[in-house]
Amino acid sequence: MKKISKGIIELSNQPSIISYGAIAGKKESEGPLGGEIDETGTDSLFGQDTFEKAESHLQKRALEIALKKGNLNNSDIDIVFAGDLLNQCIGSSFGIKDFNIPFTGLYGACSTMALSLAYAAITVECGMAEKAAAVTSSHFCSAERQYRFPLEYGGQRTPTAQWTVTGSGAAILSKGQNKPFINKIAIGKINDLGIKDANNMGAAMSPAAYDTIKRFFNATNTSPKDYDMIFTGDLGFVGSELLYELFKRDNVNLRKYHKDCGLMIFDRNKQDVHCGGSGCGCSATVLCSHILNKLNSGKLRNILFCATGALLSPTSTMQGESIPCIAHLVQICKN
Amino acid sequence: MKKISKGIIELSNQPSIISYGAIAGKKESEGPLGGEIDETGTDSLFGQDTFEKAESHLQKRALEIALKKGNLNNSDIDIVFAGDLLNQCIGSSFGIKDFNIPFTGLYGACSTMALSLAYAAITVECGMAEKAAAVTSSHFCSAERQYRFPLEYGGQRTPTAQWTVTGSGAAILSKGQNKPFINKIAIGKINDLGIKDANNMGAAMSPAAYDTIKRFFNATNTSPKDYDMIFTGDLGFVGSELLYELFKRDNVNLRKYHKDCGLMIFDRNKQDVHCGGSGCGCSATVLCSHILNKLNSGKLRNILFCATGALLSPTSTMQGESIPCIAHLVQICKN
Repeated sequence: MKKISKGIIELSNQPSIISYGAIAGKKESEGPLGGEIDETGTDSLFGQDTFEKAESHLQKRALEIALKKGNLNNSDIDIVFAGDLLNQCIGSSFGIKDFNIPFTGLYGACSTMALSLAYAAITVECGMAEKAAAVTSSHFCSAERQYRFPLEYGGQRTPTAQWTVTGSGAAILSKGQNKPFINKIAIGKINDLGIKDANNMGAAMSPAAYDTIKRFFNATNTSPKDYDMIFTGDLGFVGSELLYELFKRDNVNLRKYHKDCGLMIFDRNKQDVHCGGSGCGCSATVLCSHILNKLNSGKLRNILFCATGALLSPTSTMQGESIPCIAHLVQICKN
Repeated sequence: MKKISKGIIELSNQPSIISYGAIAGKKESEGPLGGEIDETGTDSLFGQDTFEKAESHLQKRALEIALKKGNLNNSDIDIVFAGDLLNQCIGSSFGIKDFNIPFTGLYGACSTMALSLAYAAITVECGMAEKAAAVTSSHFCSAERQYRFPLEYGGQRTPTAQWTVTGSGAAILSKGQNKPFINKIAIGKINDLGIKDANNMGAAMSPAAYDTIKRFFNATNTSPKDYDMIFTGDLGFVGSELLYELFKRDNVNLRKYHKDCGLMIFDRNKQDVHCGGSGCGCSATVLCSHILNKLNSGKLRNILFCATGALLSPTSTMQGESIPCIAHLVQICKN
């Protein structure tokens, strides 16, 4: 491992994604990537009696699917990194508790898939783990009632609002297996430009994405054209446009090389999701289906996966605070 | 770095705690360790207008104090690991956001100080960071109203209840400086023995502490007498007694070598805290004052610091779920 600059490192042992799995809800199954998601539900409960238990079930299943696809057992995994959006991260604790694997809980809001992937890679890189797993989830119904209103209230959503993805993705990492591998990592800084509209997360998060991607470009002396694609987590339509605008000021055209998982998982014209998808499960589901499929087939060979998170809580919003945001980045390559 | 067994590693570069700082509330200042805490408040608000903002202030000050005592600037730190008990970890996001340091949010409930210390050590060990910081906090008033009742309600506390510490501790790590250093780390597994009483966290957490400490003893072929002291985070009186009981079944006498931070920070006979202190800030404050003082002065030379966390949320409790718990362990030595 080599430190390139603060929070930005290059790995030398090619921690590789040897298996991955994704599960999502009905609405996601009807989106453009539905056919690539390993397992999809027919309702919001997935056989559980509450939305929160359903979310835990998503994490459990995502990890089970990844293990099964990799022909692995629980006992093969040295450590699992997981996180979600629920208070006290119960989606992860209850989802992972029965696997009997050493567990590290992470919190980065919707940026958590990049964060957990980064630390899974770091532990494999430095010999702490032979195999490490990264899992995150979100659930529309548990997120709505926690962050906004009970579903029964039928609150009107603003045009800038995004739709929390019901889904979970899990990735399992191990050393050099001729699979997609984590090459570089950039741990984000918290950015807070004073935006207070909790229904416009894209606007709040885009400066964090800009900061991390720009720091990464500078540290590695690269630009968008050096990558097959730059994926952000869930900036949605407004956030993506703002990100292009920020890079335009530096005379960098990002639009051509950029896709946002929040805009990939749903069809905004048909699915009434306003600005696109969001949530920890958004980038996790897209990564652990479509993106990794493309990397494995060689259609993508060098990508940046930059998931963004809004580190607010309903309490901080009610107390009039702004929305601190963060973006973590992982470069994934395929030989 | 050498992997000893699943989740248990030995470090070879002696990531050392080169500076540390602690801040706490009035009640903590009146406890047995009050004189060792760098800064103490006179009320619960520390000049802020809400308890949540006060908690963020605690994290900010703890890190500022640690930086100042180490004659360091923000820009000297490569990465900061932080966590707390508040929904969406806002104690950390708002506490750390203005430092402009790459940030990794962790969630391990009250075990978070051991977890953040572990990852700060790992990043220094493997060259990802020259200097890394670990910070956690808790606040009695923000925790009460989030987990239990509004303070104004004046709810009666049960005999097994613990008192959330208002405090924060920060530690800064760097390579070999003839200071206390992290020698080994054990990442915990989630344990859930079906306990559902959210007012008896000690009982819920003791099996997690037992599991991690026992796995560590087995992996390192050691026993309590090999350590100057084994500190747990916040098992309190009931949890500590249960931990002794669990080890007694293995014919291991832990009592003689064990102290619990929750029983050290308050005087249970005089301070009406029932079973002792608790919270992320409990073990953080005790570690970053009393314990590290003793390690620096050579009065302790080889300790285990095992912080325990209850990974419940009010939602999971209301849904009738049990309390999954975890304990992470860090061995700290001084040459």
